[in-house]
Amino acid sequence: MDEPAFTLSHTRIAIIGLGLMGGSLALALNGRCRALVGVDPDDSTRALARAREVTCFPELGAALDTDLLILATPVRSILSLLASLSDSHFVIRHAKRTFVIDLGSTKGLITSAMQTLPPHFDPLGGHPMCGKEVSGFAHADPELFRDKTFVLTPLPRTSPAALTLALELVAALGAQPLLLAPEQHDQLAATSSHLPYLAATALMQAAQSLNDDLLWAMTASGFRDTSRLAASDLTMMIDILLTNRPAILNSLTRYRTQLDSLFALIESSDPATLRAALAPAQAKRSALFPSPNGRYVLRSEAEWGGVGGEGEILDK
Amino acid sequence: MDEPAFTLSHTRIAIIGLGLMGGSLALALNGRCRALVGVDPDDSTRALARAREVTCFPELGAALDTDLLILATPVRSILSLLASLSDSHFVIRHAKRTFVIDLGSTKGLITSAMQTLPPHFDPLGGHPMCGKEVSGFAHADPELFRDKTFVLTPLPRTSPAALTLALELVAALGAQPLLLAPEQHDQLAATSSHLPYLAATALMQAAQSLNDDLLWAMTASGFRDTSRLAASDLTMMIDILLTNRPAILNSLTRYRTQLDSLFALIESSDPATLRAALAPAQAKRSALFPSPNGRYVLRSEAEWGGVGGEGEILDK
Repeated sequence: MDEPAFTLSHTRIAIIGLGLMGGSLALALNGRCRALVGVDPDDSTRALARAREVTCFPELGAALDTDLLILATPVRSILSLLASLSDSHFVIRHAKRTFVIDLGSTKGLITSAMQTLPPHFDPLGGHPMCGKEVSGFAHADPELFRDKTFVLTPLPRTSPAALTLALELVAALGAQPLLLAPEQHDQLAATSSHLPYLAATALMQAAQSLNDDLLWAMTASGFRDTSRLAASDLTMMIDILLTNRPAILNSLTRYRTQLDSLFALIESSDPATLRAALAPAQAKRSALFPSPNGRYVLRSEAEWGGVGGEGEILDK
Repeated sequence: MDEPAFTLSHTRIAIIGLGLMGGSLALALNGRCRALVGVDPDDSTRALARAREVTCFPELGAALDTDLLILATPVRSILSLLASLSDSHFVIRHAKRTFVIDLGSTKGLITSAMQTLPPHFDPLGGHPMCGKEVSGFAHADPELFRDKTFVLTPLPRTSPAALTLALELVAALGAQPLLLAPEQHDQLAATSSHLPYLAATALMQAAQSLNDDLLWAMTASGFRDTSRLAASDLTMMIDILLTNRPAILNSLTRYRTQLDSLFALIESSDPATLRAALAPAQAKRSALFPSPNGRYVLRSEAEWGGVGGEGEILDK
């Protein structure tokens, strides 16, 4: 591209969708760019955003004259928004170059749709790897992205200027950029994000299927954390499930294979085989997220295995 | 029973096993009873405990002359300890009435073994519903039990005095007592505790089976929390899996049924059916553990469903 590089501080930004992601982005970027407007159809969302000094409007029209359009709605709404950007009214009224980035949770269908946008758009895909089990502007936090991975999926048509601006945006959020092909993102996200949601939801469903209210008195921090993602926003999750189907079904199949294997191991009742099967997952999880409270202390089976039984410890 | 009721402040307590549970109990009770000793075969554990003013010994013999014996090792070691309490040497040397409570994660086999203890023992089962994915005295915390459920499983032979003392103990920890039959505990715990462990472990295994290190850059708080229990202490978990097999296999089967149903729903790709299937789990999880950050904000599909597509919003 021939134009001089855009920098964030000279960029007029419009964020479409002021939920948890879009709202957090608005709070993080407001005052750090030339102008920022938010668009959200929900009255109470706009009231909350205005109270945090975000200029906002109910309709997309207000966001048309901008340098960078950030699409921060659920995936299928992003697909609808991309379709309206190709609408002839829009093309006629706004032929100025506009960068487009989205924050959608799946990237394949979105980047395909971006590829067919009119030529004055300069799009790429994005996905910040962070979230909460709660949604909406009420939970927005300008620090949400700090130290998190922010995936960028450039298209064949993405200009170096667009990628540079996106990298500047990621840096401004305190996030770590990770460049991936859209298909690669979707395959990895199926296992890192979408499968945990399904695992958590099936856990809640299995617990509910017991129909015993005493169960809820028995749920401790383990159940709480393992089931947390089941509380995720349904619209967001349904859009994910419908737009990343093959990769999600593939990762569910791999998950069921592991559960089947655990089932057989428990049935066979051999402690050594069980330990050998469980240990790699235990070691990897402990290494991946070290405890904040100090070193992990593993008590070996041998330590306790010899206690009692023959009564010899009473003679020591 | 004819004896006057014991109260905690007049009770000499021995805690066998100074891991996370036994260590936390020792820290919570030390100074609130007539005497307290801990028993642990591990030198470094005893050094840590002594540094927190817990008197301790390496061998069970040191704990024999006591009023209340608390067994706080993994389940299969508790079974060994109960076997040694029936040992003739022990019976001959200690015919004085001794309350026995355990903190084991499964209750069926333990309470069966308790039922056959010599008559001067006055046993009941216990299980505090709390934990961490880390183990060992290094992570012990006298507040671990506060506001948590503490299950008690009295036996036919348990005296009112033993139950009263156990309830006083639970109250001293700031926990909530829940009286259950051992089989009822094991069935509920299979779903509330043991199934979440298996779900987390299978998630780690499915992720590892991808053999792609980029995946770990993509794991955010959702994966972190859903996989947390996979880091649990292996000796503790193997003992649980081996001593609550039928209930765990039953709960795994119910879990796989839910996953199969989710698989079919995703395959069928109908948003309304998906939403209807996911909503009850979402509602229950949100009600069970309300967000600490404020009310849950659910964005309805309808809010975003009409955006774009026909371009009509551009004319508003």
